[in-house]
Amino acid sequence: MENFKIDNPTVLHFGRNVVRDLGKTVEKYGRKVLLIYGGGSIKKNGIYEEVMGQLKQINAEVIEFRGIKPNPIVEDVNAAAEKGKQFQPDVILAVGGGSVIDSAKVLSLAIPCEHSAWRIMINMAKPTTAIPIITVLTLAATGSEMNSIAVLQNVETHKKIPIRNDLIYPKHSFLDPQYTFSVPKDYTAYGIVDLITHAMEAWFGEGSATLSDRFVCSIILEAMEYGPALLDDLNNYELRARIMYAATQALNGLTMYGRVSGEWGVHAIGHILSLLYDIPHGATLSVAYPAWLKLMKDRIPQRILEFGKVVFNTSTAEKTISALENFFSSIEAPVRMNEIGIGEDKKPEILDMMIKNKVNGMHYKLSKEDIEKIVELMY
Amino acid sequence: MENFKIDNPTVLHFGRNVVRDLGKTVEKYGRKVLLIYGGGSIKKNGIYEEVMGQLKQINAEVIEFRGIKPNPIVEDVNAAAEKGKQFQPDVILAVGGGSVIDSAKVLSLAIPCEHSAWRIMINMAKPTTAIPIITVLTLAATGSEMNSIAVLQNVETHKKIPIRNDLIYPKHSFLDPQYTFSVPKDYTAYGIVDLITHAMEAWFGEGSATLSDRFVCSIILEAMEYGPALLDDLNNYELRARIMYAATQALNGLTMYGRVSGEWGVHAIGHILSLLYDIPHGATLSVAYPAWLKLMKDRIPQRILEFGKVVFNTSTAEKTISALENFFSSIEAPVRMNEIGIGEDKKPEILDMMIKNKVNGMHYKLSKEDIEKIVELMY
Repeated sequence: MENFKIDNPTVLHFGRNVVRDLGKTVEKYGRKVLLIYGGGSIKKNGIYEEVMGQLKQINAEVIEFRGIKPNPIVEDVNAAAEKGKQFQPDVILAVGGGSVIDSAKVLSLAIPCEHSAWRIMINMAKPTTAIPIITVLTLAATGSEMNSIAVLQNVETHKKIPIRNDLIYPKHSFLDPQYTFSVPKDYTAYGIVDLITHAMEAWFGEGSATLSDRFVCSIILEAMEYGPALLDDLNNYELRARIMYAATQALNGLTMYGRVSGEWGVHAIGHILSLLYDIPHGATLSVAYPAWLKLMKDRIPQRILEFGKVVFNTSTAEKTISALENFFSSIEAPVRMNEIGIGEDKKPEILDMMIKNKVNGMHYKLSKEDIEKIVELMY
Repeated sequence: MENFKIDNPTVLHFGRNVVRDLGKTVEKYGRKVLLIYGGGSIKKNGIYEEVMGQLKQINAEVIEFRGIKPNPIVEDVNAAAEKGKQFQPDVILAVGGGSVIDSAKVLSLAIPCEHSAWRIMINMAKPTTAIPIITVLTLAATGSEMNSIAVLQNVETHKKIPIRNDLIYPKHSFLDPQYTFSVPKDYTAYGIVDLITHAMEAWFGEGSATLSDRFVCSIILEAMEYGPALLDDLNNYELRARIMYAATQALNGLTMYGRVSGEWGVHAIGHILSLLYDIPHGATLSVAYPAWLKLMKDRIPQRILEFGKVVFNTSTAEKTISALENFFSSIEAPVRMNEIGIGEDKKPEILDMMIKNKVNGMHYKLSKEDIEKIVELMY
């Protein structure tokens, strides 16, 4: 067990109508609010109105930045930062899923910084301060609402990379499962894949942390028990709540305490697929994780089997991988590239981009040959 | 699933030699330190010296309050508060187990308050501020290092009750498993019982919170897997670390999110036994929990069985209760009153004290007849 620190400052407000407390929470940080959101679905499902109602109650001065893409890009963050530098907000209010929250996180560093957002991402700038972030979550998936991680894509340089910085933990996150009712079936499934693979990236990380292992399996079993039922009953509060809470716990530190590192090789692969073909993040992971496991099955059969025993009651590493694929297929998440319309002719392009982006794991390093094999195994 | 808030501000420093960061952490709050500890075992095992070395590094002005008892009493807190009111510390440094930390928590409220510590405990005073607390944990058991709960006994009025107040979360807690090496076998076992029963009090609480249920079982399985091995190898770092971490997670909120309440009836019973006979807290719980479960087995057989299935792989509520008793016995924790030298002649006295203290559960209420039955079942 490695030394660790538990120091997650995000206050999570979870449950029915918790957004009622949003206004007074924002007010603690000030009245100048930069509101950031996505393509505008929050204007259709009533969330925008509720949030604005809260801001009106405190006489907030609000400017908006709309149009964060599902695979968020640094160019949007730069545009938002320009607005932000003029406006000098007291607080950034991110209303959306992981893409909006991740953008808000980098934005919170970029506004008070003289460097561009991308220079912050690639650690060429060392921000010392951040605008406080408050989030209202509308999609259960990334866990961004309670961690210090953000992932952005650079359209120009064709990179998609993560950043981690203690300054970007949201101060408060509001999670009302009702706010996820309007997420369609496919994106609900991708969110389930995302949370499961976050927990798996911890499982396959370095170091022996048995209680964290048990928490990993708890979260995955929860998602596997209630996820499929949710997909048949998208407006079911209890099911939405269970998945939403599981997604938060899957990537807020709980699965990691006592480890040296997580794995994260599969996420790196997934980011390449999103970068090239704008595939939803979760759908890249349901393809990439089985492929990575097949590569690893003769190297770490025992670790794969330990996982399979608890989660699938399987007796071999092979059967564990099949069971995972079957689960993903059962919730209609793709497990092969052709299921997402990417033909075999794209293999060289995918491989090139992986090499260019230096795709690798944190625990198990991937050689060029390994990456070639993974690309084959995704088909 | 009930609405909930995750808002635990304690920063946990876990692992080998983490106390190296104690001095600079204390310094953030100031240099006037009230150091509180127990009977002096920390002077024998080197912990006192290490802590004082850290305080010397920051030129701290230190006063000490020594002598907190294993079942801590409010009278000691009042005496410490008198010292504290004179000294006006910037920070209270609690070095010890749950009894020392619980005492420090009430002390942190009592120093800036005009009321006595007991008036604070019984909610007759409403403290609005607290002296910051930093803890160095030397016993894995109560979870007090990362929660807002304190339990104290009043010798004069013969009461032992808990208080919960957000002001008394420790700011920082330092958990070095090496600091628990000198805890003897019996107290190590009582700590294991304590952490298991904390998780069980969550399990038998009110409300459906499936992920929290899984966390409960994770913590208990961890304690059951590594606890017995630890008792045969008391200086094993990895085993000490696993139990120490499990104890913290057993009562820091993680097992409770989404529930209406915990149960806590068994702890209320245990407090009476400590109050009357000065029995170690954990040893009261290994006697009281099986008795409570026997009372409840025809009322909530399904809930007991669900627990047994996951934790013991049992097929009935009865077998689950036996399995729990067997586990406690296997680690030499008592499961009957006569094992702790309290004969049947004490039954009326125990019953009287339970009624006087209004012993009850939070979820399942206990009638006078129920309490009578539990007393019988403890023999």
